[in-house]
Amino acid sequence: MTTTSVSLEDIFSLARQTLLTAGANEENANAVADTVMRAERDGSHSHGLFRMPGYVSSLRSGKVNGCADPQLHSRTPVALHCDGDLGYAPLAHQRSLDALAEAAHKSGIAVLSITRTHHFAALWPETEALAEKGLTAITCVSYMPSVAPFGAHKPLYGTNPLSFAWPRPDAPPLVFDMATAAMAMGDIQIAARDGRAVPPGTGLDTAGKPTTDPAEIIKGVLLPFGGYKGSHIAMMIELLAGPLVGETVSFASKTRDNGDGGPPQGGQFILAMNPTILSGDDWAEQSEAFIERIGQLDGVRLPAERRHKNRHDQGARQIDDALLEKIAKII
Amino acid sequence: MTTTSVSLEDIFSLARQTLLTAGANEENANAVADTVMRAERDGSHSHGLFRMPGYVSSLRSGKVNGCADPQLHSRTPVALHCDGDLGYAPLAHQRSLDALAEAAHKSGIAVLSITRTHHFAALWPETEALAEKGLTAITCVSYMPSVAPFGAHKPLYGTNPLSFAWPRPDAPPLVFDMATAAMAMGDIQIAARDGRAVPPGTGLDTAGKPTTDPAEIIKGVLLPFGGYKGSHIAMMIELLAGPLVGETVSFASKTRDNGDGGPPQGGQFILAMNPTILSGDDWAEQSEAFIERIGQLDGVRLPAERRHKNRHDQGARQIDDALLEKIAKII
Repeated sequence: MTTTSVSLEDIFSLARQTLLTAGANEENANAVADTVMRAERDGSHSHGLFRMPGYVSSLRSGKVNGCADPQLHSRTPVALHCDGDLGYAPLAHQRSLDALAEAAHKSGIAVLSITRTHHFAALWPETEALAEKGLTAITCVSYMPSVAPFGAHKPLYGTNPLSFAWPRPDAPPLVFDMATAAMAMGDIQIAARDGRAVPPGTGLDTAGKPTTDPAEIIKGVLLPFGGYKGSHIAMMIELLAGPLVGETVSFASKTRDNGDGGPPQGGQFILAMNPTILSGDDWAEQSEAFIERIGQLDGVRLPAERRHKNRHDQGARQIDDALLEKIAKII
Repeated sequence: MTTTSVSLEDIFSLARQTLLTAGANEENANAVADTVMRAERDGSHSHGLFRMPGYVSSLRSGKVNGCADPQLHSRTPVALHCDGDLGYAPLAHQRSLDALAEAAHKSGIAVLSITRTHHFAALWPETEALAEKGLTAITCVSYMPSVAPFGAHKPLYGTNPLSFAWPRPDAPPLVFDMATAAMAMGDIQIAARDGRAVPPGTGLDTAGKPTTDPAEIIKGVLLPFGGYKGSHIAMMIELLAGPLVGETVSFASKTRDNGDGGPPQGGQFILAMNPTILSGDDWAEQSEAFIERIGQLDGVRLPAERRHKNRHDQGARQIDDALLEKIAKII
């Protein structure tokens, strides 16, 4: 794999220009391009420029509204709703997260239901932004059915990622962001592209047999992480990001989808809580002592530690030439 | 193992009388005995009479207040707090869950922080009670450090159970309640008592080596379910049931504990959400179609299905004679 050195500014511009050419307006293109740039900056490649062909195909097919005008309103003082107007999620976030944070700061807890949105990025930008405001946050989305419930051989759940962030007074938030599939589809696609095998337990082939070939799993079905317990978490996410917020579960999202390769329409659940109100106590002393203990254990790395370290490097990133060519062709 | 047939009424009376003899007052004894009876009724043996010796030893040591008078107050209209007064959790639940449900019904979301409590039961009674009122609910507690974070060999996390319930219009709620350890400590203790091996991946011995001998794991350390992803969930629960609600994480709970074999003092996080407000939509149609699909898959059983089936049988339960003798001796 040959690569080219591209500055963060140029990554943003490349993403932005590509989206504008595909029909997005300035505001939507800027919001998505910022998300793409931050993924590359943090080393989260499967959510960076790798996603551009998918972003573009869904704009061109008309499934995603490149000129979306997301609207926020309050169902109650602590239950906010944002209608995504069928656009990509980042602009809906820009217009909603501050209000969610304000409600949680005031009342101790608040929730944001996002509907009619297309989420095609990592989830940590949402939880991390809330934790940077002193809140703890949980978010999840569902996707296309590609994961078999534990014990089954047919897909019903999406890869259904879950992200959690916890605020730290003098450090970046503690954040995790993980698919509840044994492996994220983006990572399986990258493994397939690079011809790498994936670990046993990742998925089944079209005949329902275990395989380590990512290309076979893409045709077959993924498994949830952690057996029946991970399967329960994936099920919970279907309900939280679907019916709870007024959107569809994965299988219904797929029925509605036009198959253009981009993300389906779906919902997002975002919860924000204020530890200062909920604990009525000096929460940070407890949590900092706990996080320090984790960091001191042999063999353990704090989640997001590598991502936050990558972030300090504001220099150029190495981008796969084949990917750059692919993007150049679609402009 | 020989057993004796005991009616549900007699299970309740046995638990109640044992607790009263050990110093609990009527109200606390009734609340705990009801929880014990319901566990046996549902076939959840590791949370039934099996726990009586632990309940009693913590009352007798004075660690748990058998005459606790839990106090509920509102930090905001949607952030409730219950000070458990160092008693067992069931009475705190009896005095708090209706108010939590009312707040969630009105505002769409509400949270209950319980502090200074000793939780020694399953979590489904709390989530199921909320789901029976049309809400979706999530709860978690931490425990004593017995689980090594993924990659480590030393315990830091509790077995940290998580329960989720989703309301169904014409059926018992969809509920799961699971330890984030590869196996619940109660089940490992029962396996050790019965001399049964546990599955590989459940834990490590005192030398940090994998073992399937439950007695060795009790001396050594449990592993989280699902590798690093399950470890993340266990970590999140430490923060939600500890610093977020104004209580300690597992390792700090242990430092404070007197080692009497009963449950340590800790916190509980209970979240309740009203899908009718959050979705602004006909949520039940979506979720019922989804739950039906899961039930139709070959090889898949809905969580709690067996428990709810057991519940229909109001007849006597078979109780281990050795356990009955043990309880008779402590009265």
